[in-house]
Amino acid sequence: MRQSQMLIPTLKEVPADAESASHQLLLRGGFIRQNAAGIYSYLPLGYKVIKKIETIIREEMDRIGSQELLMPAMQPAELWHESGRWDVYGPELMRLKDRHGRFFAMGATGEELVTSLVRDTLNTYKKLPMSVYQIQTKYRDEKRPRFGLLRGREFIMKDAYTFHATEESLDDAYWKMFNAYKNVFERCGLKFRAVLADSGAMGGKDTHEFQALAEIGEDTIAYSDQSDFAANLEMAPVISRETLASSETLPLEKKSGKVAESDDRLITACWFKTRTDTVLVFLKAVDEVNDVKVKNLLGTDLVEPLERESLLDALHPDDKILIFADQGLKGQKDGVFYNTAEDLTYINIDPERDLHISQFADLRFVKEGDPSPDGNGTIKFAKGIEVGQVFKLGTKYSETMGALFLDEEGKTKPLIMGCYGIGVSRTLSAICEQYHDEKGLIWPKSLAPFDIHLITVNPKNDEQLTLSEKLYSDLSDLGFEVLWDDRRERPGVKFADSELIGCPVQVVVGKKAPESIVEVGARKEQAEGRKEVAVETLSQVVTDLMAELN
Amino acid sequence: MRQSQMLIPTLKEVPADAESASHQLLLRGGFIRQNAAGIYSYLPLGYKVIKKIETIIREEMDRIGSQELLMPAMQPAELWHESGRWDVYGPELMRLKDRHGRFFAMGATGEELVTSLVRDTLNTYKKLPMSVYQIQTKYRDEKRPRFGLLRGREFIMKDAYTFHATEESLDDAYWKMFNAYKNVFERCGLKFRAVLADSGAMGGKDTHEFQALAEIGEDTIAYSDQSDFAANLEMAPVISRETLASSETLPLEKKSGKVAESDDRLITACWFKTRTDTVLVFLKAVDEVNDVKVKNLLGTDLVEPLERESLLDALHPDDKILIFADQGLKGQKDGVFYNTAEDLTYINIDPERDLHISQFADLRFVKEGDPSPDGNGTIKFAKGIEVGQVFKLGTKYSETMGALFLDEEGKTKPLIMGCYGIGVSRTLSAICEQYHDEKGLIWPKSLAPFDIHLITVNPKNDEQLTLSEKLYSDLSDLGFEVLWDDRRERPGVKFADSELIGCPVQVVVGKKAPESIVEVGARKEQAEGRKEVAVETLSQVVTDLMAELN
Repeated sequence: MRQSQMLIPTLKEVPADAESASHQLLLRGGFIRQNAAGIYSYLPLGYKVIKKIETIIREEMDRIGSQELLMPAMQPAELWHESGRWDVYGPELMRLKDRHGRFFAMGATGEELVTSLVRDTLNTYKKLPMSVYQIQTKYRDEKRPRFGLLRGREFIMKDAYTFHATEESLDDAYWKMFNAYKNVFERCGLKFRAVLADSGAMGGKDTHEFQALAEIGEDTIAYSDQSDFAANLEMAPVISRETLASSETLPLEKKSGKVAESDDRLITACWFKTRTDTVLVFLKAVDEVNDVKVKNLLGTDLVEPLERESLLDALHPDDKILIFADQGLKGQKDGVFYNTAEDLTYINIDPERDLHISQFADLRFVKEGDPSPDGNGTIKFAKGIEVGQVFKLGTKYSETMGALFLDEEGKTKPLIMGCYGIGVSRTLSAICEQYHDEKGLIWPKSLAPFDIHLITVNPKNDEQLTLSEKLYSDLSDLGFEVLWDDRRERPGVKFADSELIGCPVQVVVGKKAPESIVEVGARKEQAEGRKEVAVETLSQVVTDLMAELN
Repeated sequence: MRQSQMLIPTLKEVPADAESASHQLLLRGGFIRQNAAGIYSYLPLGYKVIKKIETIIREEMDRIGSQELLMPAMQPAELWHESGRWDVYGPELMRLKDRHGRFFAMGATGEELVTSLVRDTLNTYKKLPMSVYQIQTKYRDEKRPRFGLLRGREFIMKDAYTFHATEESLDDAYWKMFNAYKNVFERCGLKFRAVLADSGAMGGKDTHEFQALAEIGEDTIAYSDQSDFAANLEMAPVISRETLASSETLPLEKKSGKVAESDDRLITACWFKTRTDTVLVFLKAVDEVNDVKVKNLLGTDLVEPLERESLLDALHPDDKILIFADQGLKGQKDGVFYNTAEDLTYINIDPERDLHISQFADLRFVKEGDPSPDGNGTIKFAKGIEVGQVFKLGTKYSETMGALFLDEEGKTKPLIMGCYGIGVSRTLSAICEQYHDEKGLIWPKSLAPFDIHLITVNPKNDEQLTLSEKLYSDLSDLGFEVLWDDRRERPGVKFADSELIGCPVQVVVGKKAPESIVEVGARKEQAEGRKEVAVETLSQVVTDLMAELN
């Protein structure tokens, strides 16, 4: 493509409100333009990359037998009432009213719609399992859209849904999808971790998130430095380590005032409220209580912290309070607790003896330096951008919305469902976070808008122009996608734009055109990496260079 | 693809509210499902066809150097205020309010957005011309959605926009786009006419519509039975035919009451109101006045008919009334007019002499049987479905929205624009209107969801199953897309579904499988057209058959 004919409005200045590297560089490189808060146009360069991501997704979905369809973005409110989400989804759900006063949701997700679609259709085990997906524009009215495409209000998503007669069949589809997602992100060149995630709120079972590693990520991932183990911070289990019992067991004592003690002996008390109960959790003061683990232990969907700090109720318990402790307190004999209300410090606490704990469990956040739960290595933290999720949804929607089938014995059962998502536009941004330098983007070759940026330094010079035309044609014939900068711009502008745009390989036709010599280099090496190459060897040099790059 | 794994919910019954053949058959064949009035899901079969149409469009757009981008569907209301269309577009524009109370239009069309996108970018003639397009979901809150995808509220459209420094450049792009559209529709197998259309309301200049010929079409096309001439009914010019002057010229006379006369001599008067004037148009009573022609003659955007019938004002004119006559009255000497108010019949009217007509012009609708305006053949009428339009938009949006550029002489000018659209989902429906019989769809091979429907009559029979597996693999290896009906259904169900789905070629593996004989036929020939074929010659037979089909 001739650059003079392309809409690539590069920017010299860093846009004021663009906080992240991906946001800045996608704007500056002329890949996207903002139309409103969290709402963007994909310009020709940006849309070329989006289409490459979509093609990879389609190929991997086809390979596992998932079928593409396209459901509408306008979803009748009735369906969201059926599932109960119209009221609970909150202001993030974009809603509109048609000319007849009927309400619609602008799809933030497709569970309701797909369930309504199959409920009259997949009515027998003979038609199961079934797997469908769509690549579609989705809407979410984010309170604070940010980081460009990373948290937008209109975005492109691949969502897939599978339907099953048995849990085993769901499990099979789940891992097929898991592997397909791994393939997608690997083929995109993304550095990512598939992490255990929390399924609680969505009422399902197993779930993994695919987290692209990036400093600006909003999620913290706990991973092993020596194995594949990775989990969202709130989901990472902590291995029980025997607390060394102190040599002697002393009776519980109270001292007036706050007594200074070593941090490791200090115990803290966290209070929570569920829909039905009051809950008290003890743990080491050096640890942090993990409310997701509390929630999962209780099997409830809601725990709220209470502003209270006391251990009195644990010393003199009544049935109204559920008392738990983190497993880290098990075996401790010399606990210390300062009770503010009494201005007393309790010492020599043996939680098992003194605190009427109904159960010791893993209730704290993992910490860097903890042993990895799989026994291999040590836990480290990283920041991640969630680019995908696989989820065993179970029967939540099929039950509430009446999507039933007859099993082999003629019994009516709700369909068992899985749901799966990839943030397409978000993946684009995550790639940019990982593939750039201070001058611009550096595309992995699987997603690059063009393979080669052919730069004619001075297109007014006939020899440069003629040679460039020939190379443009030759390289295109070899199957490379070539962006030819044929513009009558200053060389400085051209090179700066080329660094911003970030095609993997640059071929520069300049002063040595009369000698049939051009410069070739990988974008990631910047100008210093470019070498002079005789035109007759160019095809080979470029082919070799492309083969080296990832 | 194995049919047992595909979501193809065929229906035996004709859905109650499906009025047109395309709507009925797309629903019955399991191509689409309705989610709300005018809102549909494209199921896997339907979406395969949509993607084929999109691929053809992309190829033809690429060929003329138009670049694909994707603008958001959520368009800030501010842009529609700038263009003035927020208020005039009416209830067909879907509108929504975000959580902060800001208004958005759900894009019905993209002129505002694309103009805002280029107005800071295409600021010099050096960057012109530029051509961009997108394939996107559009919204239009139709009062009465009907005919399935033909008049939907959420639909897929290709919209393109070109930007120019000169009218000549626009003209060049216009005809390139015109030809690309012809190629698109020809490749889709559509029977269509490119017709002259009215550009008045949109404030532009030349425009053509691409009309798919179909009985249920809502537009009437006037075309020549012997040439390429075609126009929308309201745009078709009428050739002036000399009215035979009557042998003698008699003075104007009045007779009391209504005098019976030959129809051809009767004159009628039509009154109109514009924003500023009252307009009176005379024409033969056998003709019908064409208000679009009146509008264009006056160069105004609005004419409203008045309930008045009198010629008095023409006999005693004042300056307040503009008086015109259809060219068909020129030369007439013996006109007759019954003036209701006076209960008098005027006879021997010579319009040129008696009626103070300021101009004779082509102001009537063309009729079947009129000579074609290009001089070749006779006018016939047909019904059409508008599937595409090319439009010289001019500077309407660039002026109101301030999209300016510097020309070669350093003068600031508004960008000259063209806009172009193809209804993608509507094209799908139009194809179905043209390609079906009473049993189901019959896809043209360029758009067929699968080339071949391989039907195993009894998959419980090992010989049939084994042979089918082999043929499925062989035919796929030849590059054909094969839908294999491997379902354990009754043969009657399978054949009925196969007719509904309408793949171009059917291969049936039945009782003669042990003798390596199958049946092959074109879908359009129905069951009677299938012939027995020895398996070893099947590849050749199918290849030949596909080559014969369009």
